Amino acid sequence: MPSMPQWLYQRAQLTPHRLAFETEHEKLSFQQLYVHVQKTASALRSAGVVSGAYIASLQGNTIRCAILTHALMMAGAVMVPLNTRLSVDELTQQIQDSGSQMLITDESNEEKAIKVGEKTSCTVLHISALFTAKTPLIDFSTEVQLNEPCTVIFTSGTTGRPKGVVLTYGNHWWNANASLLNLGLTQKDTWLCCVPLFHVSGLSILMKSVIYGMPVYLCEKFSPETVNHQITKGGISHISVVAPMLQRMMDALGEGKTYPSTLRCILLGGGPVPQHLLQRCLGLHMPIYQTYGMSETASQSVTLPPESMLEKAGSAGKPLFPMQIRIISDGHSAAVDEPGEIQVKGPTVFSHYLNNADATKQAFEDQWFLTGDIGYLDDDGFLFVLDRRKDLIISGGENIYPAEVESILNGFEGVQRAGVIGIPDTQWGHVPIAFVSLRHAEQFSEHALIDYCRGHLAHYKVPKRIYVIDQLPENASHKLLRRKLFAYYKQMNNQ
Amino acid sequence: MPSMPQWLYQRAQLTPHRLAFETEHEKLSFQQLYVHVQKTASALRSAGVVSGAYIASLQGNTIRCAILTHALMMAGAVMVPLNTRLSVDELTQQIQDSGSQMLITDESNEEKAIKVGEKTSCTVLHISALFTAKTPLIDFSTEVQLNEPCTVIFTSGTTGRPKGVVLTYGNHWWNANASLLNLGLTQKDTWLCCVPLFHVSGLSILMKSVIYGMPVYLCEKFSPETVNHQITKGGISHISVVAPMLQRMMDALGEGKTYPSTLRCILLGGGPVPQHLLQRCLGLHMPIYQTYGMSETASQSVTLPPESMLEKAGSAGKPLFPMQIRIISDGHSAAVDEPGEIQVKGPTVFSHYLNNADATKQAFEDQWFLTGDIGYLDDDGFLFVLDRRKDLIISGGENIYPAEVESILNGFEGVQRAGVIGIPDTQWGHVPIAFVSLRHAEQFSEHALIDYCRGHLAHYKVPKRIYVIDQLPENASHKLLRRKLFAYYKQMNNQ
Repeated sequence: MPSMPQWLYQRAQLTPHRLAFETEHEKLSFQQLYVHVQKTASALRSAGVVSGAYIASLQGNTIRCAILTHALMMAGAVMVPLNTRLSVDELTQQIQDSGSQMLITDESNEEKAIKVGEKTSCTVLHISALFTAKTPLIDFSTEVQLNEPCTVIFTSGTTGRPKGVVLTYGNHWWNANASLLNLGLTQKDTWLCCVPLFHVSGLSILMKSVIYGMPVYLCEKFSPETVNHQITKGGISHISVVAPMLQRMMDALGEGKTYPSTLRCILLGGGPVPQHLLQRCLGLHMPIYQTYGMSETASQSVTLPPESMLEKAGSAGKPLFPMQIRIISDGHSAAVDEPGEIQVKGPTVFSHYLNNADATKQAFEDQWFLTGDIGYLDDDGFLFVLDRRKDLIISGGENIYPAEVESILNGFEGVQRAGVIGIPDTQWGHVPIAFVSLRHAEQFSEHALIDYCRGHLAHYKVPKRIYVIDQLPENASHKLLRRKLFAYYKQMNNQ
Repeated sequence: MPSMPQWLYQRAQLTPHRLAFETEHEKLSFQQLYVHVQKTASALRSAGVVSGAYIASLQGNTIRCAILTHALMMAGAVMVPLNTRLSVDELTQQIQDSGSQMLITDESNEEKAIKVGEKTSCTVLHISALFTAKTPLIDFSTEVQLNEPCTVIFTSGTTGRPKGVVLTYGNHWWNANASLLNLGLTQKDTWLCCVPLFHVSGLSILMKSVIYGMPVYLCEKFSPETVNHQITKGGISHISVVAPMLQRMMDALGEGKTYPSTLRCILLGGGPVPQHLLQRCLGLHMPIYQTYGMSETASQSVTLPPESMLEKAGSAGKPLFPMQIRIISDGHSAAVDEPGEIQVKGPTVFSHYLNNADATKQAFEDQWFLTGDIGYLDDDGFLFVLDRRKDLIISGGENIYPAEVESILNGFEGVQRAGVIGIPDTQWGHVPIAFVSLRHAEQFSEHALIDYCRGHLAHYKVPKRIYVIDQLPENASHKLLRRKLFAYYKQMNNQ
């Protein structure tokens, strides 16, 4: 892997006056961004952050968070962006699993961060301390090595314990370039970021910005009205969304209305897209690019090419230029239209799961990453994703593994066994519901159990309903048969 | 270095129906190109071309040559594209130096190729033999390794003997991507190629085409009228030129006339640009991107960013995103505005000179490539190139080293010593002229000596005038002092 100039350093050298960030309140050129970042990186160093250190971040979608992201890169640290919706228990586990020595937080997340700090040996630092610190400026390395780790993003795991996906500089670099070869690049491009910076979708926009020399319009919160206003004003060319966000944008826009042609890419990822939504958008000639990707592939790895948008609606498309996909069914290459496991190979595929050699080993066959997702290729080579990873529930773009929720439910006194499935929801795509069998039925309170879940899980993972049943469906070796729960659900709701 | 899909294979999979090539006579989609290339690669294999073989090509700018280029890549061979303007002696040397086992030629170059074949052990093959061969189709590897050699391009050397620059797949890949980050990419882009495919400038357009999924309009010969016609029709977005070509295009276009805005990039490389030409183009708001590059950097490595076109006219610009440059004067980093040697580092820098470890060693310091060219950086970091490599003469975009021409002159009976310099020329930028001292002045014929040169050198290298002088200027150790010859020239022409 070749060395190359440190990205922000080079960008500020090459096009200092180009806009890097815009928010409702402020604008920053790449030169201004560089000045902030160098200052912040210097403050990090003086706070004891050495090159190679793992540093967690628990923050909202602010310019300061974007500056911190670049500052950690400049200081040679590995950033561990944490999902702000996680519970204290979940965050504590990720801090411990990543060996993060410091947790940097902001106003909105400070309370939770302090609780995490009390449960771990991790120093909690308020980001404003970095911005107000008066430390001498340091000249950091002006080069990066593409095989060095850059970020660790935790993903839910099939076994209930989230895994830390290590992405190298090279993974992010190749993703930015691969996307470029599909979507193109003009000097007028501006990417609106209303997806979380702690997800690979948001993070990858920051990487593209500095590599492309492209401004990002950063939204602190997702508001369909604000997003529509920015797009309609004509200054936005790209936006990354998940289906529920797009649905709300369309609803706010109003029937029959569409966006100006300055918006040239709606990158639509994070799970299945309802047919009616897709048809409505395509009927209005909206530039929908359906995409398939995950943390492990540094964001999109498969995307519908623009010329196939209409003809192949519903498909996630074809691999990005440096990527390869294959479908394996029963150990063999699947035939056209035959479903099987989607496997991905290429330079955006992650390096390894942090401190989890077993999971890494299980995730690869040669250099192919075994996604666990099910799909097929049609006879033109287009990928259709059928099912996400075994039992995965995608709710508003967030991944929820039943096993993770079940392990919390099973820890509640009185619960004998729990089973979780996802059911369709108009707002979120899917939401989790639970079935439990009880030890002492008379003492059970659904309310208390949901409260208990809220204390241990991110709120989006908390079951929306809990059904009590006598016994959960099991196979001969007492393994939970989750798919039978779908029938129970239908029965109980007379569907 | 990661593996990735074979470029043309992947491109034909992803966007089969996009246009790949257009000429005056034909059009080829990427799918059609793939079919031709697979057939040609299969024919190459059956003609004994194994993976890793060095195969020379002596051909004009035809679609067949472009197909052969891709076919050699598909067959895993290393292409050695030879300059069709070279003499039989020069070609013979390059065939021998590269160890090429086969020389593939076309109608226009067959006669010369056969003569080369007679002087070497190299098989000469007419390209039409590959196109008419009826060989079973082979399924070639669908992956490439970026650290594998892809092409060998010979460049003139300061010592008189051309060196074979080995460029890997990675070098070409990074060049295409680096250029993209500077120039952007849209679905309407079409690159007009009227520079030779045997130069890195033309070759890099082929690489960009397949990586970007972008059509190339290929011109067999450079004709200012044809080029102007294509641009004016509105179908061309990019063109690569050297200054003498641009001058002829402007002359043919007519005073005060300009190109439509569909032409968004005139990539202007290959040596110094006369101020009056630059000013005329910029006055007409032409999108001139001055650039600095060479075979050793897989084409452009430094290019003027679009926003600095007017403010920094005359500058070669800033490094492409993955590249770094530095100016070294007397072993130290030069100050702002202080001239020194231009050194380049980054993933487009060539791997090594073929079979020439000494030259490779001398060309690098750490990972910095020592170009030998002289330039300075202004206080905004823009590169101004002052002098090309020691004594290099650039004539119509072709490099001529005085030492190479002198070694031929010195081999002529009766010549005691020869010295060659370049003088300004309105058509070609510069042309070579020679000074010779003689053993037997009375028997000398300038005409005979020029004829002799034509037999041994490419015509563009043959001195336009030969001046006889008593003694060439030498230093104490009898080293030729070429710079004194400029004064002689002025004196003789009463300038």
